Amino acid sequence: MIVVRTVAELRAALSPRRDGTIGLVPTMGALHEGHATLLRAARAADDTVVMSIFVNPTQFNEQADLAAYPRTEAADLDLAEAEGVDVVFAPDAAEVYPRAFATTVTVSGPIAETLEGAERGRGHFDGVATVVTKLLLASLPDHAYFGAKDAQQVAVIRRFVADLGIPVKVVVCPTSRDADGLARSSRNTRLSPHERSQALAIPRALDAVRDAAAGGLSGTGALQARAVAELEAAGIHPEYVAFVDPETFAPVAAVEGPVLVAIAARVGTTRLIDNTVIGGA
Amino acid sequence: MIVVRTVAELRAALSPRRDGTIGLVPTMGALHEGHATLLRAARAADDTVVMSIFVNPTQFNEQADLAAYPRTEAADLDLAEAEGVDVVFAPDAAEVYPRAFATTVTVSGPIAETLEGAERGRGHFDGVATVVTKLLLASLPDHAYFGAKDAQQVAVIRRFVADLGIPVKVVVCPTSRDADGLARSSRNTRLSPHERSQALAIPRALDAVRDAAAGGLSGTGALQARAVAELEAAGIHPEYVAFVDPETFAPVAAVEGPVLVAIAARVGTTRLIDNTVIGGA
Repeated sequence: MIVVRTVAELRAALSPRRDGTIGLVPTMGALHEGHATLLRAARAADDTVVMSIFVNPTQFNEQADLAAYPRTEAADLDLAEAEGVDVVFAPDAAEVYPRAFATTVTVSGPIAETLEGAERGRGHFDGVATVVTKLLLASLPDHAYFGAKDAQQVAVIRRFVADLGIPVKVVVCPTSRDADGLARSSRNTRLSPHERSQALAIPRALDAVRDAAAGGLSGTGALQARAVAELEAAGIHPEYVAFVDPETFAPVAAVEGPVLVAIAARVGTTRLIDNTVIGGA
Repeated sequence: MIVVRTVAELRAALSPRRDGTIGLVPTMGALHEGHATLLRAARAADDTVVMSIFVNPTQFNEQADLAAYPRTEAADLDLAEAEGVDVVFAPDAAEVYPRAFATTVTVSGPIAETLEGAERGRGHFDGVATVVTKLLLASLPDHAYFGAKDAQQVAVIRRFVADLGIPVKVVVCPTSRDADGLARSSRNTRLSPHERSQALAIPRALDAVRDAAAGGLSGTGALQARAVAELEAAGIHPEYVAFVDPETFAPVAAVEGPVLVAIAARVGTTRLIDNTVIGGA
């Protein structure tokens, strides 16, 4: 495994490997089993696996969240090596955003402006779209792997990849969960034991919605009430419990096809998100 | 020469040609000798020459200008064939901007917001940056050729190509001029004989600035007055006569290095632009 810090080094490392396929797993480091799942999917499908580590400042709306974001490069490199990564691209901010940098990739509409786009500020998905465009163009992979936990990020990425015609296939892997059901997240390490047990109300709320929908309840207002009740019972006041079209993020009133159920909530000071799709084929 | 209408066809046509270099000449059609100069530069340098023809609606701020923009595809294809073009990519608007399209590439700062960005509206360079990104990613050329006449467009393109890391070398060819000195433009066909003779004051104004600067005049205020006098004497009231840094488009007060002198003016109802660089090494 080699570790490179610049786009020029990355391109030089990948140039002799373009006879085979290349898979990219973009990360912000602080790797956990969820990232390992993405790396294994890439390792199984692609001849060369590239993993990027970059805590992208432009997608954080809160400086405190950026500052507190865990940085664990040595452990990340060990995990990457154990998962068979070939090339790690770990640039610093000056490599990604040199002086005079002035370009933004923006996705408009509910897909980028509601839910996470509203809660985290308009700049969040601009930051995501711009940095992911750069990572994709730096590595020009055949496949890029993302986790379903960040459902809205995935929808935004699919949108601008299609719109700009970036020549890559976006592969979405199912949300990786701990044995207790909590969606894996780098932020989970910040939860106290009490907060962690509170946080389990989030996957329980999604289960409750899934069960109610499977039982025939189709109005999203009633389904939302089930989820909120489950959360409130654990002392969690959600930022949102949303029922939207998985592609456009337009709100959905009744389950008559695939509907994304997305939850965001703070547990203590830690902001968690999770989601599931109901009403699928 | 083959003509393709979709990105899929373009990629299929280029795929077997990637052993050699590919040069892209993006155009809005209505080809003239200026475009031919770009095609010859590409033909001399690249194994495969691709020319695109697309009158991009998103970069026009005036519907009347878009509607009046000359469309001469049959003649354009003849010229392309005569210049040895291998592949013409001539998509329609639905291919470039399908339903649900929601992505914009934006360059911020004086480079995109002043002069043409101010006169033609904020959306102009967003439209240029987004469509050129798409054309570059559809063809992934080694070289892309642009004319120096559109100096600010060139600066914007250089900026987002560098910022996003689009793997292409931007090649800028000198402004092509008719024997009388007028910069070649598809819009020149709209000039009446009288307007055409008026319009010659634009290159004369640039010459006057160049001569005065060569003679030792370095204050851009005084240089601007020379240009304006030349224009006003021909009955032309310019939209701007600007002296800016050729890369950042920040205004420059004195000529102490390369300075871009840019003029925009309406002659009759036709808007013309021209420029030169003074104070070069």
